[in-house]
Parts: sequence; structure tokens; C-alpha cells
Amino acid sequence: MTGTFYGVGVGPGDPELLTLKAISVLKAAHAVVVPKSKDTASCGSQALGIAAKAVDLSDKEIVEMAFPMTKDRDELFSARKEAASRITGMLRAGRDVAFITLGDPVLYSTFGCLIPFVKELLPEVRIRVVPGITSFSAAASAVNKPIAESDEKVAIIPAAYGLAGLEEALRAFDTVIIMKVNKVMDEVICVLKRLGLDGRAFLVSRASLPGEEVVTDIKSLEGARPDYFSTLIVKKSGW
Amino acid sequence: MTGTFYGVGVGPGDPELLTLKAISVLKAAHAVVVPKSKDTASCGSQALGIAAKAVDLSDKEIVEMAFPMTKDRDELFSARKEAASRITGMLRAGRDVAFITLGDPVLYSTFGCLIPFVKELLPEVRIRVVPGITSFSAAASAVNKPIAESDEKVAIIPAAYGLAGLEEALRAFDTVIIMKVNKVMDEVICVLKRLGLDGRAFLVSRASLPGEEVVTDIKSLEGARPDYFSTLIVKKSGW
Repeated sequence: MTGTFYGVGVGPGDPELLTLKAISVLKAAHAVVVPKSKDTASCGSQALGIAAKAVDLSDKEIVEMAFPMTKDRDELFSARKEAASRITGMLRAGRDVAFITLGDPVLYSTFGCLIPFVKELLPEVRIRVVPGITSFSAAASAVNKPIAESDEKVAIIPAAYGLAGLEEALRAFDTVIIMKVNKVMDEVICVLKRLGLDGRAFLVSRASLPGEEVVTDIKSLEGARPDYFSTLIVKKSGW
Repeated sequence: MTGTFYGVGVGPGDPELLTLKAISVLKAAHAVVVPKSKDTASCGSQALGIAAKAVDLSDKEIVEMAFPMTKDRDELFSARKEAASRITGMLRAGRDVAFITLGDPVLYSTFGCLIPFVKELLPEVRIRVVPGITSFSAAASAVNKPIAESDEKVAIIPAAYGLAGLEEALRAFDTVIIMKVNKVMDEVICVLKRLGLDGRAFLVSRASLPGEEVVTDIKSLEGARPDYFSTLIVKKSGW
């Protein structure tokens, strides 16, 4: 019988933020796939480190897979095909494979991109997703502030890919979450100042991880480069 | 010593989707607060039912608190003040109080609204938030589809309060999550059809709960009233 392909969210960092389901799936899995790339190597090793604190992984096959951070479609697709081929190989051998992901496998995870490639090679594949706690939930929890209440609308901008649409989002939405904000901090501060929203934002770096840091005086970050694991939340109604 | 006020997310429904932290906080708490209102009574009892499946609550004080679903600010504020007064009474008596919430306490939970009222009565209060798995993560997990990949931007619309801004969100964002869509289903279908997006949406009712249902032929829901716990996700890039 072919194995099951699991996407397992290990949450934002604190091993206590794994779900019971993530733990039971990891315990039962034969192999754990850890995504790696030059830019996001830290994501993969963070995810593995978190999982290993919650579950004994010593008897698992740990499989690192490289995923380039590139806009070159050919390079991207060939890495995904290669990964899918290795994964379906394990599944065909009857092994349950858990692909671990920081945060949530359905939000900005390589797992999501892999699904079509795995399905192409193994159309009858059995896939199960174990959702995880997101970094932005952990960030808001760290400051005891709701992201949104009652009728407030929320926008999520993945800033690793730039800030297109940020200003429109800040005008039209009550709360704007800017993920992976580290490389564009100055640009964000500039937009916030122009819209008079710099007093309505907070930044959480390494939410729920050792070294978690909260910055509420956003302007103090001008010229700074926050940690890679940083989320900025703008809540227009105040917080 | 005064107790700690916890906001505990019990996730979308499956008791296996509680985090280890939620379980340890619930185990240690003296009292469990369950929010109730005419409209959302089911939320409170759902949350309690889920928590009770994961943790033995038989020795806890279970405290139901009424929160009206109203736009009348006075009524709303007086209910919150009353709740805050009961909660701070328990905290002053040295009791740890866990306010449970379906999904995540930082997203559309009464817990978020209560914080300022509790702080006003007990400025030195110790608050801890335990984030939870959201219904939209569970909905996407149910269909093995990512909500967003790479540079895709996400909008969240809480439809219990109407659909203002929906069309703009559908134009400007890659993925739009419409929460509590049940009362406005026809209006949503109408907008999706107008924008040619009705083939790009799926609805999940009771995600991860018994009776979970997935509908991909959105037009088939015209004239229907889905379950109260229903989330619609539009992913323009397809899914």
C-alpha cells in the first residue's frame, strides 16, 4: 500500500504550539522532509528543531530537499519535480512522509507548491494537511492584542516579494499584516509615516522563539534590519 | 497573588487541533469562561465541547457569560464591563481564568474586546494568549489546497457584518477569505459570477467538525443557507 503524504505545520517556534495532531502524525511518520534553500535554510532547520523538541525523531529518516528562492520558473519547477519524484518514491515504498513547515502548510509553504507535482506523478496519492499556528497569530498573542475584532477586515502582504499594493491595503483594510518584513523595513516605515499610521503598528521578531522581540516605536527601526522572522502588524483602530 | 487571565484558542473543531499549550493551560486553570450570545450560543458550546474532548474539565468552574450581538454600543459595553468585573473578581481571588474561544483568540474573538475592560479594572493583570488554529486554515486543509503561495496577497472579510469592500478585495487580492458567509451566500455568488470567479471558489462548512462539508460548485448554493460555521475561499490563481 502506498504511504500518505502529510503537510505538517509545526507552528511559529514554541514547541508547545504544535497541535496534538501534528505530534501524532510526526510520531507515526516514517520519513520527515525538511525544505532547504539558501535564503530559507533557517526555516527548514527551525522547523526541524521545533519538531524535534516536541517529538523524538531519532528513528525517522530525515530528508532534506533543496528549493531555490528564484523567479526562474524552469529552475523552480525542476526543483519541485525532483522533490516530488523523491517523495513519491518513498510513498510507493509504503512509507508515510511528513513534510514539515514553519507556521501553517496552507499559508506560504513550499508544501502547497509541491502538491500538484506529487499528484502528477502519483494521481491516487493520499494527502493530509495538519494546519499550524501562524507567525502572525503568535505575534499578536505576544502583545496581547487582537488582529481584528467584529467587522474589521484584514490584509496579508508577503513582503519577501515586495510591497506592491501595500498602500492600497492600508487605505482599504482595518488591519494589515506584513510578513517577512525584514528586507523592506525602511520602505514600510516611509509608507506608514506618509499615511500617519506609524503609531498604529508593532513589529514582533521571532514570535514565540527564543529571543522574541517586540518593537512598538516603529520609527526607531529606521535603518535597522530586523530578524528574518519578523512580522509587522498595522491596526488602524489602535491596539 | 492575583491569577492569570488566559485567552485560549481551541481551534476549529477537531479536538486533535488543540495545541499542547492550550491543553496545559486548560489543565491548570481554575475556571473556564464560555462566551454565550443568542446568535453565537453555538460558538460557546462548540468551544466548550471541543475543550472537554481534549481535557478533563470536570473539576473546573465553568462560567458562562452573555455577550449580545448588537451594534448598540451601550449594550455592548455594559455586557463587556459586567464580564470584566466577574473575571477580575475571580483573578483577585487568585484563580487562573481561561477564556476559551473557537479558532484563534486574536481573530474575531470576544476575548480581544474584553482585554481593555479587564485592564481598566485590574491594571496589573497578567494576560496570556494561546493562539489557535483558524477555521480558514482548517477549511483549506480539508481540500488540500494552499490559501496563498509565494507573492499572493490575502484578504479576510468577516461576512457576519456584511460584505462592504468585497468586490474591491476580489479585484486587488489573490485570495479572499469570507468568514461566516452563511447569511450572505446569494450576494457573494452574485459578485463572484459578475467577476467571473465562481469557478475559483470553494466553501467548507464545519471544517474539521463532524459533518464537515466541501462544496466546489458554488453556483449550486444559490438560494441555500449553509451551516453557520462556513468559510468561503476564493483563490484567483485556481486551486
